[in-house]
Amino acid sequence: MPDRPTTPLLDQVQSPADLKRFSDGQLETLAHELRAETIAAVSETGGHLGAGLGVVELTVALHHVFDAPRDKIIWDVSHQSYPHKILTGRRDRMRSIRQKDGLSGFTKRSESPYDPFGAAHSSTSISAALGFAVARDLGGACPTGHGDAIAIIGDGAMSAGMAFEAMNNAGHLGKRLIVILNDNEMSIAPPVGALSSYLSRLYAGEPFQEFKAAAKGAISLLPPPFQEGARRAKDMLKGMTVGGTLFEELGFSYVGPIDGHDMEQLLPVLRTVKARATGPILIHALTKKGKGYAPAERARDGGHATAKFDLVTGEQKKAPSNAPSYTKVFANALLDQAARDDKICAITAAMPDGTGLDLFSERYPSRCFDVGIAEQHAVTFSAGLAAGGMKPFCALYSTFLQRGYDQVVHDVAIQRLPVRFAIDRAGLVGADGATHAGAFDVAFLANLPGFVVMAAADEAELVHMVATAAAHDDGPIAFRYPRGEGSGVTMPERGEPLEIGKGRIIQEGSRVAILSYGTRLKEVMEASEALRARGITPTVADARFAKPLDEALILDLVENHEAMITIEEGAIGGFASHVSHFLSEAKVFDDGFKFRSMVLPDIFIDQASPADMYGTARLNASDIEARVLDVLDIAQVSGKRA
Amino acid sequence: MPDRPTTPLLDQVQSPADLKRFSDGQLETLAHELRAETIAAVSETGGHLGAGLGVVELTVALHHVFDAPRDKIIWDVSHQSYPHKILTGRRDRMRSIRQKDGLSGFTKRSESPYDPFGAAHSSTSISAALGFAVARDLGGACPTGHGDAIAIIGDGAMSAGMAFEAMNNAGHLGKRLIVILNDNEMSIAPPVGALSSYLSRLYAGEPFQEFKAAAKGAISLLPPPFQEGARRAKDMLKGMTVGGTLFEELGFSYVGPIDGHDMEQLLPVLRTVKARATGPILIHALTKKGKGYAPAERARDGGHATAKFDLVTGEQKKAPSNAPSYTKVFANALLDQAARDDKICAITAAMPDGTGLDLFSERYPSRCFDVGIAEQHAVTFSAGLAAGGMKPFCALYSTFLQRGYDQVVHDVAIQRLPVRFAIDRAGLVGADGATHAGAFDVAFLANLPGFVVMAAADEAELVHMVATAAAHDDGPIAFRYPRGEGSGVTMPERGEPLEIGKGRIIQEGSRVAILSYGTRLKEVMEASEALRARGITPTVADARFAKPLDEALILDLVENHEAMITIEEGAIGGFASHVSHFLSEAKVFDDGFKFRSMVLPDIFIDQASPADMYGTARLNASDIEARVLDVLDIAQVSGKRA
Repeated sequence: MPDRPTTPLLDQVQSPADLKRFSDGQLETLAHELRAETIAAVSETGGHLGAGLGVVELTVALHHVFDAPRDKIIWDVSHQSYPHKILTGRRDRMRSIRQKDGLSGFTKRSESPYDPFGAAHSSTSISAALGFAVARDLGGACPTGHGDAIAIIGDGAMSAGMAFEAMNNAGHLGKRLIVILNDNEMSIAPPVGALSSYLSRLYAGEPFQEFKAAAKGAISLLPPPFQEGARRAKDMLKGMTVGGTLFEELGFSYVGPIDGHDMEQLLPVLRTVKARATGPILIHALTKKGKGYAPAERARDGGHATAKFDLVTGEQKKAPSNAPSYTKVFANALLDQAARDDKICAITAAMPDGTGLDLFSERYPSRCFDVGIAEQHAVTFSAGLAAGGMKPFCALYSTFLQRGYDQVVHDVAIQRLPVRFAIDRAGLVGADGATHAGAFDVAFLANLPGFVVMAAADEAELVHMVATAAAHDDGPIAFRYPRGEGSGVTMPERGEPLEIGKGRIIQEGSRVAILSYGTRLKEVMEASEALRARGITPTVADARFAKPLDEALILDLVENHEAMITIEEGAIGGFASHVSHFLSEAKVFDDGFKFRSMVLPDIFIDQASPADMYGTARLNASDIEARVLDVLDIAQVSGKRA
Repeated sequence: MPDRPTTPLLDQVQSPADLKRFSDGQLETLAHELRAETIAAVSETGGHLGAGLGVVELTVALHHVFDAPRDKIIWDVSHQSYPHKILTGRRDRMRSIRQKDGLSGFTKRSESPYDPFGAAHSSTSISAALGFAVARDLGGACPTGHGDAIAIIGDGAMSAGMAFEAMNNAGHLGKRLIVILNDNEMSIAPPVGALSSYLSRLYAGEPFQEFKAAAKGAISLLPPPFQEGARRAKDMLKGMTVGGTLFEELGFSYVGPIDGHDMEQLLPVLRTVKARATGPILIHALTKKGKGYAPAERARDGGHATAKFDLVTGEQKKAPSNAPSYTKVFANALLDQAARDDKICAITAAMPDGTGLDLFSERYPSRCFDVGIAEQHAVTFSAGLAAGGMKPFCALYSTFLQRGYDQVVHDVAIQRLPVRFAIDRAGLVGADGATHAGAFDVAFLANLPGFVVMAAADEAELVHMVATAAAHDDGPIAFRYPRGEGSGVTMPERGEPLEIGKGRIIQEGSRVAILSYGTRLKEVMEASEALRARGITPTVADARFAKPLDEALILDLVENHEAMITIEEGAIGGFASHVSHFLSEAKVFDDGFKFRSMVLPDIFIDQASPADMYGTARLNASDIEARVLDVLDIAQVSGKRA
């Protein structure tokens, strides 16, 4: 076991109540210990590091001043909640974080009463906190009681439309509500957007020194518990303020900016706010992502997410990879297309690295657009680009495309505009768990008239699908591909457009046809190997398209087999549902035909390795084998039947 | 034919180019004629009136100063585009607006080159305009060429998150882009939210008189074409400005507020902006919804949408209704529940009248929340309320729920929070056409683990479903119901909670079972009557639940019939797909079973009467009858086969 840091104060903390008796000085020491413990834990497990290190002091100060779980501390995105988890009774499970049956990498209501609202997608915290604040004032029956509602939200998350919607509503309602803007000039990528420039201007005047003096004065004036009048507290807060009109225009009182790593600023401000706030208030705290751990501070992304790493050097311990990641394959294929067509442009919503568009941005900066955490805008902006004669590739994770769904329907599909959707992280994603699963995109896209919906079976197919999308100018087209590495297939020199709506036979066989959609194809081939030992050679086909369906291929498979099994990395309503609808309308079932569909099950699957998650989903090779045996009524050795 | 107004100038306008030669004085006269023509047209057809009347002068000024279709004039929501349609070659078709085969009630790319981007949902225009501006600067191949990109957006629409996302991105990119904020203090309902208060403060100081003088001075100084230097123009604009820091903080130049009905202000401002704008600029124009038509000006909603009406009195000519609307039934049922349970609260996104929550708001103002055009926030705010121990009913149109889809997945479903979704306008909606169709909600909700998804078969069922939702505290629950009147069934005295996942038999029959989900039940019963004449009595069942399915009922129907037909007012992926998945897993198809599903077809259906639209969709009684005959292999008299 690696060396663990010495943490005498932290060792006394079983719950946030234990922080109450610490002096301000001790809280500072506790913060140091908490930082060391966070780094040590993540070095063993991997996970989100930088964001947590940026809020160590804030976490300590919040849990000292406020009374969770009565007060609702709501972390936006919540990958920064590791220090919070350590202070709220989960320290002994930190080495299980993001692992199967372990702690979630995010806050989670079912995990702890100290997590009043789960998160993982950004910019939800103000809406949720406002819900708690209103429920409190209406006498809602909350099991943990009702106190303050506190949202801690990053500057990147603040750029999302839903944060603005929540501020607009909160400012209107005027309820007591505390929003802490954790401004580290960084969401995952460096910040973009006008709001970010605005925030920078707010602290351009180096206000910290003056503020620090004011805050120190405040401490001597206002020892807790507070005795002074409301006017004086208000004046103090006002005197500390050097800007923030944008928030004030939206009905919030603005305090800041303050140094989010300085307990001598954090504690008096939080105490004053707790004692005196009447309406919505925004505290603007400046922090540094990765604070206190040099390798993270140095990293371009502030040490956002990391594999296990060496505590001293910061070097990450990654398993060597055998094949390029799908993300990288997409990125290179798009670069290749863009080199030959200057109308091709790329759009990302604050994920240039995650989507691989960082490469595109370097090579073609004028054709690459990072719009911030703003999927709604990303989609309609892409639609505008397409209407204006460009060929936009809108690259989003499947789970985040959900944020722009109405725009996909209303602005893209109804207008039949040729926006190309590159859907990364399709299917189950591993350590990020259920909140990041790309489970629903096929279902919510394939029933949109005029859409072409593809899934890559392997990384070579992905290259061809990028070429297909580039060439397809008659309406919208989407292609999905999973997180992680490809399967190591031979790569084509360049992508060739596929015929729209045509699948392919991978293996000719008999009795049963397996019609695969997406990267389960590898598992299908493994199952096929195992079945061969039993004398069964299934026909295997790669559908490539959920829409339009390759009806001729499907009917041909029906004609020549006793049974057909579809498999996909998606929920009901997607590929299988379209196949099934076609089969029933084609009267295939009338005289008997064995049809089965293997889809994601009707549960949210918690984090584990992708293979484990697909095991839970019963979509692995052994499950496919079992389904084949079952549909052919062949007795199985184990009792395991699907 | 009713009297038509005398419009000598308007009669000379075949296209916007004809406006170029009019003097400023003539343009004012033209605006009067255009207003009269708009009122006259809508009086004959019904439609959106108030919004168009509010932008008559703006429309004339825009088409005089700018050069559509090269310049892209993008109307947000676009129900205010009637005057625009009249000026852009569609005057002779205005009496067909919102009718089958007629003009759309919104802008539509396929309808005219003067409609560069269609709309109907709000707040998309800035994103689209930015797309055009960027495409212009990148040399995109737009068939109509590239000039200025101009978004005209209302103050209500500006409160939506996606408008903020677009502003944030536009301010960052710094491209020349013109946004006209059409501020009538009114979206559909009176305005809510902090942004609205902010906008009110901007014109609290009665700046019009000064502004008018400045603008008049500007006219004498700056006759078009412009000769003066950039500095002078900039000073002039600056001198006109009395506020707008919020927009300036986001990187926009701000001009205004100006009187949007005063040509002497509109023309010089637009000319100056056209001549001098380099980056993004926001023009803040104050207008009055319903301007110039007293009955509309007097109406609480500014004459938002209207039936045909008497030109003199403004009295609407509505057909007498036989049954209460579903919206009203929902509203009353919720009031009844709320009277007995003070935890019940209601959330609307700027549609208090459309959802019927205006009644709730009057009776229980502290428990009713209009959050503005902000569906993302509406859903997560509801989730926060539920987590805080309230029983929120989040009432949205099906098509607008698409805006909050990720929040439904991430904040509600994954956390299994008991948010109640009242989904109005489910299915096809009539005159609003394809953009407002509620086609996808069952598909995108029913595959979410833990969700209960219901559809009301008639207005009495809706009452019971409201009660069911109120009583259901174990996770999220949704119920959908259509636009329009109920079918006139006997109403229950009060709602009784239904057993979750249990359907009901409506009629016992033989040979074929029709399993209906939603209000097609009425058509099913009509079809059943027609079939009786042929000696066929189908069994008819109302599924009530798409999730969880009533598996026992379904198996029972399979057991006792040759065939089963499902019918629903939704696209593939919804109810039928869940039934079909269940049947294939239950091995029902293995030995032959005739299964058909009647769903919305794979096309976007343009506006018409709902009955006509369902005819196009082949979901009317005659279509059901034909499907039954077809599945039973009974020859049909006509050649019409499904």
